[in-house]
Amino acid sequence: MKNNASLKEIAGILKTAQTILIFTHTNPDGDALGSAAALCRVLRKMGKTSWILMDEEVPEYISFMDTELVTRDKDCLKEHDISICVDCGEYSRFPALADKFDEGKLHLCVDHHATGDGFGDHYYIDPSEAATCQLIYKLIKELEAEVAESSEDVCEGTLIDLTVAESLYTGINTDTGSFQYSNTTADTHAIAADLMNYGVDHTAINVKLYQTIPMTKLKIQAAILQRAELLFGGKVAVGYVTGQMLEEAGAVLDDAEGTIDMLRNIEGVEIAAFLKEKGEAVKVSMRAKSFANVAEIASVFGGGGHVKAAGCTLEMGMDEALDAIKKAIGEHF
Amino acid sequence: MKNNASLKEIAGILKTAQTILIFTHTNPDGDALGSAAALCRVLRKMGKTSWILMDEEVPEYISFMDTELVTRDKDCLKEHDISICVDCGEYSRFPALADKFDEGKLHLCVDHHATGDGFGDHYYIDPSEAATCQLIYKLIKELEAEVAESSEDVCEGTLIDLTVAESLYTGINTDTGSFQYSNTTADTHAIAADLMNYGVDHTAINVKLYQTIPMTKLKIQAAILQRAELLFGGKVAVGYVTGQMLEEAGAVLDDAEGTIDMLRNIEGVEIAAFLKEKGEAVKVSMRAKSFANVAEIASVFGGGGHVKAAGCTLEMGMDEALDAIKKAIGEHF
Repeated sequence: MKNNASLKEIAGILKTAQTILIFTHTNPDGDALGSAAALCRVLRKMGKTSWILMDEEVPEYISFMDTELVTRDKDCLKEHDISICVDCGEYSRFPALADKFDEGKLHLCVDHHATGDGFGDHYYIDPSEAATCQLIYKLIKELEAEVAESSEDVCEGTLIDLTVAESLYTGINTDTGSFQYSNTTADTHAIAADLMNYGVDHTAINVKLYQTIPMTKLKIQAAILQRAELLFGGKVAVGYVTGQMLEEAGAVLDDAEGTIDMLRNIEGVEIAAFLKEKGEAVKVSMRAKSFANVAEIASVFGGGGHVKAAGCTLEMGMDEALDAIKKAIGEHF
Repeated sequence: MKNNASLKEIAGILKTAQTILIFTHTNPDGDALGSAAALCRVLRKMGKTSWILMDEEVPEYISFMDTELVTRDKDCLKEHDISICVDCGEYSRFPALADKFDEGKLHLCVDHHATGDGFGDHYYIDPSEAATCQLIYKLIKELEAEVAESSEDVCEGTLIDLTVAESLYTGINTDTGSFQYSNTTADTHAIAADLMNYGVDHTAINVKLYQTIPMTKLKIQAAILQRAELLFGGKVAVGYVTGQMLEEAGAVLDDAEGTIDMLRNIEGVEIAAFLKEKGEAVKVSMRAKSFANVAEIASVFGGGGHVKAAGCTLEMGMDEALDAIKKAIGEHF
């Protein structure tokens, strides 16, 4: 945990500000958008002027979320009091808007990624939290306490409404893989329980997240799985996708997203590798289930990543790349 | 809700008994086994003699759960005080053991299925609960209160231990589809939060439940998806499996389980139908996503079920059955 301010202190700073611009990382996911949307709506309820600034469209798969307060207009606020970055703690993850972030008179950060040595003037970064939405939930609770102290009209508990609750629920759901990942804690479920009490339509959200799979995605996944190989006594699963396979399935490369997880999920598999043809090169993703270190294997080819999720790029054809990866995995065992 | 006793009353009855035999439905799932295992272990901690009686092996996919107190010995208890049936409220769901259930001096039932008009001498049946494990959790809390009242040695909170908590967590997880199904409530998450505090290894459990898929299952699913058809502007998905397809994939019919959900999960699909060749006949499963009534379609062929999940059997070949089902779905729209 890297903090130079408590959530209570950050709440206090936000309360005294009037204009607040919210930032998050590029290619935002459910947790990034959920954190930004919930915070922005709560700040507006407190009478602030606030926007979420992005330089791209919200990805299709989370476009059902609350995107009303997202703008791509860099001039939406001028000489704003506060820039706050949520679910992101480094300039490199939102380079096109870094200058606008700097323009704020004060810079805040609330994040759960284990990044560098802090970010902004006041930051609260806690990698033990499953989702930044959990931190924003706690920040809102602090804001509610601040509001309750200062006014007789607004009582504690009014800042979270159904829209805010659904943003936070969606962010927590996506960043924990539907409460399955190891980052899920008792606290995660306790917050979900509280949010459900606001009337969150979890069925509709889960249909959007998990029951809205394009047919082209299923077709290309089927083609990949039919060609996938189990090696080394079933401990290794290797799959691949080529341009020709995509064409035959009427699919695009994005449709192959998630295939690496399907390979890792095979019974008995410890290491999964998935190879994608991309121009003249082959991009390789690898996953370990329990004990293997795929970052080590990736490093053989100049790649890297985490112990359980790593990748590399091979400047060769698919057949040659498949041979090279299988050989490197064999040497790792 | 159909009750003629409160959970507190059922707890009181269990406390005064000495020998208790636990029953559940045939082909037990995570909720059935989790409910029985948690209750049995808690009763033993209270000094009772208790067993879970089954007439079959625990299915492979939940065999990682706590099965130590499961027996297939009908003579494990003689002239026992209490028969209690959990996650099941009718003789027809455990026919081979119905006579042994009757042998108990008193008959209890704790269930969440909307069945007939009650079952046994004292029953607590609440279909609003996502899982019977939620009811067993509440029953154990009542037992803890009973124990706390009557003894100075055992204080409240000691009946649930890690093994009991993992049984209950697994049952709740499986019956809510990893907290995604519409039956999930704030209460579900609140109970999960409490159980997590006992140190539940949710990562290991979720790997067992969702990341241990046989390769043969993936291969047959891939073959099914590659042949699946989208009809009526993408609102209907129809898939099928034949004996020959199974043979080519080295799979068995059980490996095709879950394929109907994959078809329903396709973007834009409202009705999914999945046809399985079984001897000279074809078994049809159907699912609706939001508004359609597949029970109505199944009834055309003498089948039935629920509005969103129904089935029927067609005494004909696969090609003929596919035509008949497509026609019936078309007429339904």
